[in-house]
Amino acid sequence: MARKIFFTPGPSALYFTVEEHLKQAVKDQVMEVNHRSKQASAYYQHAAENLKSLINIPEDYHVFFLSSATEIWERQIENLVVEKSYHFCYGAFSNRFYEFAKSLGKQAFKAESKFGSIPEVNTAAIPNDTELISFALNETSTGVTFPVEDIYKVRESHPDAIIAIDGVSAFPVIDIDFTKIDSAYFSVQKCFGLPAGLGVWIVNDRCIEKSLKKEADGHSIGTYQSLPNLLKNGSKFQTTYTINVLNIFLLMKVTTDMLNKGIDVIRRESIYKGVLLQKMISDHPSLSHFVADEKLRSKTVVVANTTTASQEWIDELSSRGFVVGNGYGDYKGKQIRIASFPTHSKELIELLTDTINSIRL
Amino acid sequence: MARKIFFTPGPSALYFTVEEHLKQAVKDQVMEVNHRSKQASAYYQHAAENLKSLINIPEDYHVFFLSSATEIWERQIENLVVEKSYHFCYGAFSNRFYEFAKSLGKQAFKAESKFGSIPEVNTAAIPNDTELISFALNETSTGVTFPVEDIYKVRESHPDAIIAIDGVSAFPVIDIDFTKIDSAYFSVQKCFGLPAGLGVWIVNDRCIEKSLKKEADGHSIGTYQSLPNLLKNGSKFQTTYTINVLNIFLLMKVTTDMLNKGIDVIRRESIYKGVLLQKMISDHPSLSHFVADEKLRSKTVVVANTTTASQEWIDELSSRGFVVGNGYGDYKGKQIRIASFPTHSKELIELLTDTINSIRL
Repeated sequence: MARKIFFTPGPSALYFTVEEHLKQAVKDQVMEVNHRSKQASAYYQHAAENLKSLINIPEDYHVFFLSSATEIWERQIENLVVEKSYHFCYGAFSNRFYEFAKSLGKQAFKAESKFGSIPEVNTAAIPNDTELISFALNETSTGVTFPVEDIYKVRESHPDAIIAIDGVSAFPVIDIDFTKIDSAYFSVQKCFGLPAGLGVWIVNDRCIEKSLKKEADGHSIGTYQSLPNLLKNGSKFQTTYTINVLNIFLLMKVTTDMLNKGIDVIRRESIYKGVLLQKMISDHPSLSHFVADEKLRSKTVVVANTTTASQEWIDELSSRGFVVGNGYGDYKGKQIRIASFPTHSKELIELLTDTINSIRL
Repeated sequence: MARKIFFTPGPSALYFTVEEHLKQAVKDQVMEVNHRSKQASAYYQHAAENLKSLINIPEDYHVFFLSSATEIWERQIENLVVEKSYHFCYGAFSNRFYEFAKSLGKQAFKAESKFGSIPEVNTAAIPNDTELISFALNETSTGVTFPVEDIYKVRESHPDAIIAIDGVSAFPVIDIDFTKIDSAYFSVQKCFGLPAGLGVWIVNDRCIEKSLKKEADGHSIGTYQSLPNLLKNGSKFQTTYTINVLNIFLLMKVTTDMLNKGIDVIRRESIYKGVLLQKMISDHPSLSHFVADEKLRSKTVVVANTTTASQEWIDELSSRGFVVGNGYGDYKGKQIRIASFPTHSKELIELLTDTINSIRL
């Protein structure tokens, strides 16, 4: 089959250096070494240090590797919540974390908004004894970004709660002050341009202490993915199970490449690409913005309503070698979603916007 | 670094065709397609069908993909046990499943033996209301195989219990009658010769019904990895989260290669290689069998006591290009463990045994 360029919001196009790194991985027998070997631990340590530099994670925060961001939703509830959690919900993924909390028997509350917008941040509505408060920095399903200042406001009003941040399709592009949050997580198949199969969970010592207290109070905190066990292994740069070592190696390599490029350059390019894509939607007669409020529009996942069935757009673009995403859930068939991740160069986004501008559907 | 041949009992040497399949995966953009796309679903379906042919899984059993065998221990307890489980324990891994059940608050019982042997199968000692009974077909930590006839005996004495089989480092080499078991699982970095990062869970409808009943009775069966959710997605050949699609693709390819070679050939070669390795231990003046009972000796993971520190063996063999495993847990430093998986050809095992025979430590 003819190769295409993936602009789907994850999995997406591989980071442009991954193919070379895969060859190196075969040469270095990365897929054959034991996950507790010195070689694998060195990849873990290097990848974690790179991540700390790249997105400015404080030295005393811990970086753990799990199987997916989906798993990390579950592990957060297991480890960090005895009774109450509170969730800002404005899309499929932020809602799913809330549903996980309910399925696990918690008193889960939510502030909800229509998709394409965000809920009002009313700190008075959040119970004072809420143990965890969740936000998605970037809602991949709707193309909405949550302003970090509003997150910091909630941190101030609820200093005892764990602030949990979904960084999927946000990190490393969107900047956040880690000293004002406690738990953050992402999967690698979005902005990091890696094959799927790895989730990264970043926590501070407040999270460790909370899970130890939960356990000491006689509540289950799970088995191999409990925070004390993640810490026990992670402090030796080891994982809690036989993990996807290849992906940790690739994350190490790609974060090295990103550090060499410079996070400022990546973020500046992201702004430029976002402007191009938003302008394309504004100007095109058969596309319109799904996210009405300009300042909430994501730089990494851009969503446009289509006047005709979105499959027509998807097929037309596919025939020209570009793969874009469909609308999510109820919006399937009515929208296209376009990823603008670090691997998508300015030139690639220009090519895509020029192509879309030339299409009349 | 110079390339070595891995005889570690998982991760181990890649199946000899994997490097070529990786190139194909890059070409086919396997790491870029969505995990719910037709392309990814076709890999799931094909891999599951291949597995059913290869190890003779009945048509009405379900094949699900998760992150690891470790995860599947946890999911089995979550989905299949309300109160009581019973575990045959004779090594690090069979014991760990028991520990998981206890951590999750179950009344877990066990029949235990010294490492290197197996517990007596006393069906009268298993409580009649035990919901799940677990066996490891092959204990990777000790090199012990559990006779399938003893498993069938327990099935007859306890027809209402779920019989759960750890097939890690056993499948596809060791044959079992799936109609006499309910749940079986393995990870792909052992006998299938794939990179780590994928667990395969095979269940029958009794397992699905048990989890539905557990849920209907008001007990939590978890979130995205509940059996009803695995079934809902799996019946469309989709996974419950953004999974390691690359590994499903590679599993499809390698099981195709194994079917072409023929499972009978693979199993016959395994017997021959096992005989070579066991004879080497019998004959060598500074090695001795860890597993006293000849009929319990594993064909895929061979364990030898060393008279000197096992690290000397590991280093000496490494200098000659062979990587073997250390003893597990308390046996670290006292044993070597050697994998004889389908990727390890007769000629390779002959080369290894000749080399070990020539070494005097």
